[in-house]
Amino acid sequence: MIVIMKHDATTAQIANMTARIEGMGCTTHLSQGEERTIIGVIGNGRPIDREQIERMSGVERAVAVLRPFKLASREFHPQDTVVPINGISIGGKPLTIIAGPCSVESRAQLLETAEAVQQAGAHVLRGGAFKPRTSPYSFQGLGEEALRLLAEARSLTGLPIITEVISPELVPLVTTYADILQVGARNMQNFALLHAVGESQRPVLLKRGMMATMEELLMAAEYILSHGNQRVILCERGIRTFENYTRNTLDLSAVPMLKQLSHLPVIVDPSHATGKWELVESMSRAAIAAGADGLIIEVHPRPEEALSDGAQSLKPGRFAALVESLKPIAEAVGRTL
Amino acid sequence: MIVIMKHDATTAQIANMTARIEGMGCTTHLSQGEERTIIGVIGNGRPIDREQIERMSGVERAVAVLRPFKLASREFHPQDTVVPINGISIGGKPLTIIAGPCSVESRAQLLETAEAVQQAGAHVLRGGAFKPRTSPYSFQGLGEEALRLLAEARSLTGLPIITEVISPELVPLVTTYADILQVGARNMQNFALLHAVGESQRPVLLKRGMMATMEELLMAAEYILSHGNQRVILCERGIRTFENYTRNTLDLSAVPMLKQLSHLPVIVDPSHATGKWELVESMSRAAIAAGADGLIIEVHPRPEEALSDGAQSLKPGRFAALVESLKPIAEAVGRTL
Amino acid sequence: MIVIMKHDATTAQIANMTARIEGMGCTTHLSQGEERTIIGVIGNGRPIDREQIERMSGVERAVAVLRPFKLASREFHPQDTVVPINGISIGGKPLTIIAGPCSVESRAQLLETAEAVQQAGAHVLRGGAFKPRTSPYSFQGLGEEALRLLAEARSLTGLPIITEVISPELVPLVTTYADILQVGARNMQNFALLHAVGESQRPVLLKRGMMATMEELLMAAEYILSHGNQRVILCERGIRTFENYTRNTLDLSAVPMLKQLSHLPVIVDPSHATGKWELVESMSRAAIAAGADGLIIEVHPRPEEALSDGAQSLKPGRFAALVESLKPIAEAVGRTL
Amino acid sequence: MIVIMKHDATTAQIANMTARIEGMGCTTHLSQGEERTIIGVIGNGRPIDREQIERMSGVERAVAVLRPFKLASREFHPQDTVVPINGISIGGKPLTIIAGPCSVESRAQLLETAEAVQQAGAHVLRGGAFKPRTSPYSFQGLGEEALRLLAEARSLTGLPIITEVISPELVPLVTTYADILQVGARNMQNFALLHAVGESQRPVLLKRGMMATMEELLMAAEYILSHGNQRVILCERGIRTFENYTRNTLDLSAVPMLKQLSHLPVIVDPSHATGKWELVESMSRAAIAAGADGLIIEVHPRPEEALSDGAQSLKPGRFAALVESLKPIAEAVGRTL
Repeated sequence: MIVIMKHDATTAQIANMTARIEGMGCTTHLSQGEERTIIGVIGNGRPIDREQIERMSGVERAVAVLRPFKLASREFHPQDTVVPINGISIGGKPLTIIAGPCSVESRAQLLETAEAVQQAGAHVLRGGAFKPRTSPYSFQGLGEEALRLLAEARSLTGLPIITEVISPELVPLVTTYADILQVGARNMQNFALLHAVGESQRPVLLKRGMMATMEELLMAAEYILSHGNQRVILCERGIRTFENYTRNTLDLSAVPMLKQLSHLPVIVDPSHATGKWELVESMSRAAIAAGADGLIIEVHPRPEEALSDGAQSLKPGRFAALVESLKPIAEAVGRTL
Repeated sequence: MIVIMKHDATTAQIANMTARIEGMGCTTHLSQGEERTIIGVIGNGRPIDREQIERMSGVERAVAVLRPFKLASREFHPQDTVVPINGISIGGKPLTIIAGPCSVESRAQLLETAEAVQQAGAHVLRGGAFKPRTSPYSFQGLGEEALRLLAEARSLTGLPIITEVISPELVPLVTTYADILQVGARNMQNFALLHAVGESQRPVLLKRGMMATMEELLMAAEYILSHGNQRVILCERGIRTFENYTRNTLDLSAVPMLKQLSHLPVIVDPSHATGKWELVESMSRAAIAAGADGLIIEVHPRPEEALSDGAQSLKPGRFAALVESLKPIAEAVGRTL
Repeated sequence: MIVIMKHDATTAQIANMTARIEGMGCTTHLSQGEERTIIGVIGNGRPIDREQIERMSGVERAVAVLRPFKLASREFHPQDTVVPINGISIGGKPLTIIAGPCSVESRAQLLETAEAVQQAGAHVLRGGAFKPRTSPYSFQGLGEEALRLLAEARSLTGLPIITEVISPELVPLVTTYADILQVGARNMQNFALLHAVGESQRPVLLKRGMMATMEELLMAAEYILSHGNQRVILCERGIRTFENYTRNTLDLSAVPMLKQLSHLPVIVDPSHATGKWELVESMSRAAIAAGADGLIIEVHPRPEEALSDGAQSLKPGRFAALVESLKPIAEAVGRTL
Repeated sequence: MIVIMKHDATTAQIANMTARIEGMGCTTHLSQGEERTIIGVIGNGRPIDREQIERMSGVERAVAVLRPFKLASREFHPQDTVVPINGISIGGKPLTIIAGPCSVESRAQLLETAEAVQQAGAHVLRGGAFKPRTSPYSFQGLGEEALRLLAEARSLTGLPIITEVISPELVPLVTTYADILQVGARNMQNFALLHAVGESQRPVLLKRGMMATMEELLMAAEYILSHGNQRVILCERGIRTFENYTRNTLDLSAVPMLKQLSHLPVIVDPSHATGKWELVESMSRAAIAAGADGLIIEVHPRPEEALSDGAQSLKPGRFAALVESLKPIAEAVGRTL
């Protein structure tokens, strides 16, 4: 850490700060410029709280030298993490396509979709059982019944299943059924939930909050990793901006940036990001070209009857054509599909 | 709702849409302009899902005529809601000042602060027991021990206490101690938690998420109200923007806007919004001038030793002076302090 | 336009509004719901000012049915616009690569770069002569001297040249030299400048402002088109968000969205968007996969000595390799390079 | 400046960087931590370009120790700047109220408004002659005719006048008539215009761009100051965020923050920030309570007939009542009105 003192900081304030830092077991380097005194802090291995330093008197600001995440960082773990899941794996050379309906609505709808996405080449089946909805009056999901239907779809198709968990006390139940636990964007900083999935024995797909920085996403991953679960998959799904022709703004530069900062796999969700099925196809191709490890795409046999987010769902035929169109792009960037 | 059809929508698509809407028990009004056909929907009292309409073929967009919140709206409840709490009340002519440390750190720290803020004129004591922290390596709060200390501080000073609850399963425990439950900004859309506090018998202070629109804040309030708890207090605490000289951007125009849209009381948190104690005083005065029903302010006897957010905490002496300076402003806007 | 009256609008207010709209030569459709009266406005061909309607008493809000841009819209001009420029064209099946230094710094630097980008396959040479800089103390460009060097580079390589014009009175001078005029992001709403380039006889590359919506970008294009210049090329170059690991957030979903709304070509600038050369390559590939008509990329022989924006510049060797890597992606989306 | 080298920076890269910095006439301080090498740079008085340092090989990032603005900074000029204008002054103990219509529409409209705002206690008359409008089809202002009418209104009322200048070549014309030149939000980074008003002999009201950080606002002020004009007044008028119940988000914390960073006066524009006259009154009171040096408010005798921005204009009667309501708040914060 580097501490920049105010231009009118007194000698006593500087001495006080130096003593305080050394009291934490760190050593200091003093650099007295014409306009500012700067104190370099050389750590003892434990993280120092930047805010605690900044509130000392005479301090203008403190600058962290190291990123605040460690287990999630590529410096700590230089090789790409590959997450194995029931016969497939996420993060290696082969890309992973996750597809299925936003919500599980009925046995017929789920099984029809599951078979369609499997035939089109999907590797994992998605489907919401517990839905976080902005309005208390909207459809909240079928709950455990949906989990049972997802398990039946897995038996039928052989596809591993992913579903969202929205509360710590639901983790044991959802873990009974799901191959991958999804933490949704609105829960990215639900620390009680991060703690719970960190202690579970399932891979976790962690979605970036719609107003979360990449650093905050990696800190949320750090929560899960630090509770013992190393199988974390990051997911970019659009951030909130002032633009309103699209629902959110898909931040594809997050893909190469996150992969530079971290060893964790990065998946892209073009359906929630754009909110418009017409944009899903081109954003899927762009995501693969940007270096993503896979996609999570909403598919519904009859989007106009969907109980949630139909506007962003592809019909099975378009989804199959999309997967085909991804193959030459995957090859162009050295991946397989 | 108003449905705007695409400029090339076919007669069949228009007929299909009309039939669908009428199948929901609504009546329709067709208006055929030169460039677009527009379908007015007259409801049957039940809300219509705008997204479900928008995914029908031939639709360009659907526009909601009514706001999506009902119980929280001033149309539904024209008079201001006043929330009574152990002898005080929030939302009437007298302003409410909530003050105390960000986190409860020790018995001595809490009791010293409690006495100081009470003498300075605060009406409610705040103090964090369970802290949602961005980093898993930061201080996470003293938990139930902090709740016991808060209860002791209440006995000593007579001040009602408010503390944050971060998980549905903690609601029973926190309710045992606290007079007001706080739902923090990161949990504003933790719907399982909103459900749980909606069923509790305690007033709830609901903080606006740093990424949340006013409409989403009112929808989160709607969750609590619709689960039976009518004692909801809204809190503006700054939103995330591109500006970085302040931690967040305090949106004071939300105060009159929310009071126009809703009957619920609105409190302002200048400490978290700005992240800098030097700005807390002027923003407190501005909030009262803007029409807020009260303030929630961080006070710490020794901010430079605080375990969380000390940079934004006032010392007791400055807090007392601040409360004094608010009085003529309260009077100028027809309130008392 | 649709006018939604307040729930307590009086009969007189409704009659007054109807009379006013009809006084504009429009016809009205009244729809009296249980909770709101809605007035449909059927136009006379001239645009109605939504704000003027909204300020009438009794109005809650007015909703525009048609987009505010016309000449830029695909409805008005269904075929893709192709802009011919000295032997090449932008917007057809072949992609266009624009490359060169951020600023023209010297004859040697420019000519070396021009030859390198031409050999690597670029179609247009870029280079700044007049630089808009945040600080008055930064390098402001070589001015007319740079224009002369650009013309020399064109003679040498045969590449058409593009350079930024930052003020209406510079338009005649820049037009003397440049094949394409660039309007920068900070000037996207400099209406005097839009007017001037609209009257010039040169194609215009119009960059999206970093805080401009797509609608505002298309309205800025409308200024140029409505002053008689039909050769407008749109450019997405990143928008400002809360994220700070990248300089701006490249909004690639703007590519398919703009092409759906408008007939104008869309180019992507990955260099300014990310501010980091390490991200330029993957974002270039993603932009082509997303359907962009071309790229504008900063190339500098010695980025560490560049007088502006070197951190985002590619060296010629990497640029050449990048162009090669784009070819299979171009082919995968039905384009040529 | 502080240079943080990458964790794998080579000895040669560190030596190269040190040599480069010393070649600029600066001295260096090397601090070799366990995980990073840090180079402190002690300047020779001239600013160093941070970006130029960041693009050197082996560098992770460079951190500026000093703010990039100098003439605008309070460190350089500790006392508040007071700008005298024809008998009044902006920035001292007395507050300044600027009022008038968004656009000058007719002689009758302007003179009626001018007399009304003068009687209500305004100190300066505002009125737009050249209007920057998002749409080329909207009213663009009366131009020089409006300037003549403003001069007539000044003769009648004695109020100094302020009007916007939107292009460098209009500066001489506008200077002939106006007492204060306004640079609008969309032109805050129109550097050719900043240069021109910097060389003029008139005070300048510089509005914060809706996408501009406070640092960028102060850098824009630095342009004007560095071209010789010391009479700059800053104006906060709302920034663009994701919230859409208000037109922009008024950032009142910018008032105390700017006054801490800079010696320049700060005025608030609640009319453009909110876009709704119902919010103007409470935001005006909040701005004064926050420490603003004055307000700029839109007043129109018949807002429903205004040619621009009527929705945010107050009628003269409400404006007069507002000015009255500001007096006790001004007094509460040690100012006069």
